[in-house]
Amino acid sequence: MGTQLSAFFQKQELVPAIVQEASTGEVLMLAYMNEASLKRTMETGYTWFYSRSRQRLWQKGEESGNVQRVVSVTGDCDSDALLVKVEQTGPACHTGEPTCFFAAPIYEEELGEHSGDGSTYVRSRT
Amino acid sequence: MGTQLSAFFQKQELVPAIVQEASTGEVLMLAYMNEASLKRTMETGYTWFYSRSRQRLWQKGEESGNVQRVVSVTGDCDSDALLVKVEQTGPACHTGEPTCFFAAPIYEEELGEHSGDGSTYVRSRT
Repeated sequence: MGTQLSAFFQKQELVPAIVQEASTGEVLMLAYMNEASLKRTMETGYTWFYSRSRQRLWQKGEESGNVQRVVSVTGDCDSDALLVKVEQTGPACHTGEPTCFFAAPIYEEELGEHSGDGSTYVRSRT
Repeated sequence: MGTQLSAFFQKQELVPAIVQEASTGEVLMLAYMNEASLKRTMETGYTWFYSRSRQRLWQKGEESGNVQRVVSVTGDCDSDALLVKVEQTGPACHTGEPTCFFAAPIYEEELGEHSGDGSTYVRSRT
């Protein structure tokens, strides 16, 4: 298992981890893991990440209580990204929104009617 | 719109883009966009990325034909990640697998029965 884990950190110390709600498939957030945070995630069954700004490990929800119980962790074909399926407690975003991708899309394909808010770039289906 | 786009490239030149199949919610791959590739994605309606190894823009499927028609692009709360919902043509992964996250999980929560292949780290639900 040690060999498997270190494979993700050969090219870079930090690997982007996509966090997805297991029950709905909704993408909740993207954060970064180093090897220590990935190990702690697997040991505890809850998500731990590496904060680039604070330069330390942090558990998602350590302050808010909005923790993420891990269902599975899967690497990609190049071993440089992780997909983490979780059961999210409460909202995933520190803003209180359910996911970190709550903003209006910056691009939206037009599907018969405009759904943009004016600032959204809408492109017609050809 | 220009201001909106450049907001994503203040902290870093390359932003991780999570590509998700719009119809199923399946996460297909993670790749990187710089501002030029994001613009080209929005202008063409198909995904373009920046290749760190080849140091150039590339269109997903430019060789294989397995292109990704973009349904929407949404930024996250910190403007440092993108969620790109697409309609994938053919397999998303260069290996021929439907997604780049086809490997056996490196961690899997046990849900009543073992589903690991032996190398998977399985943790019992407490």
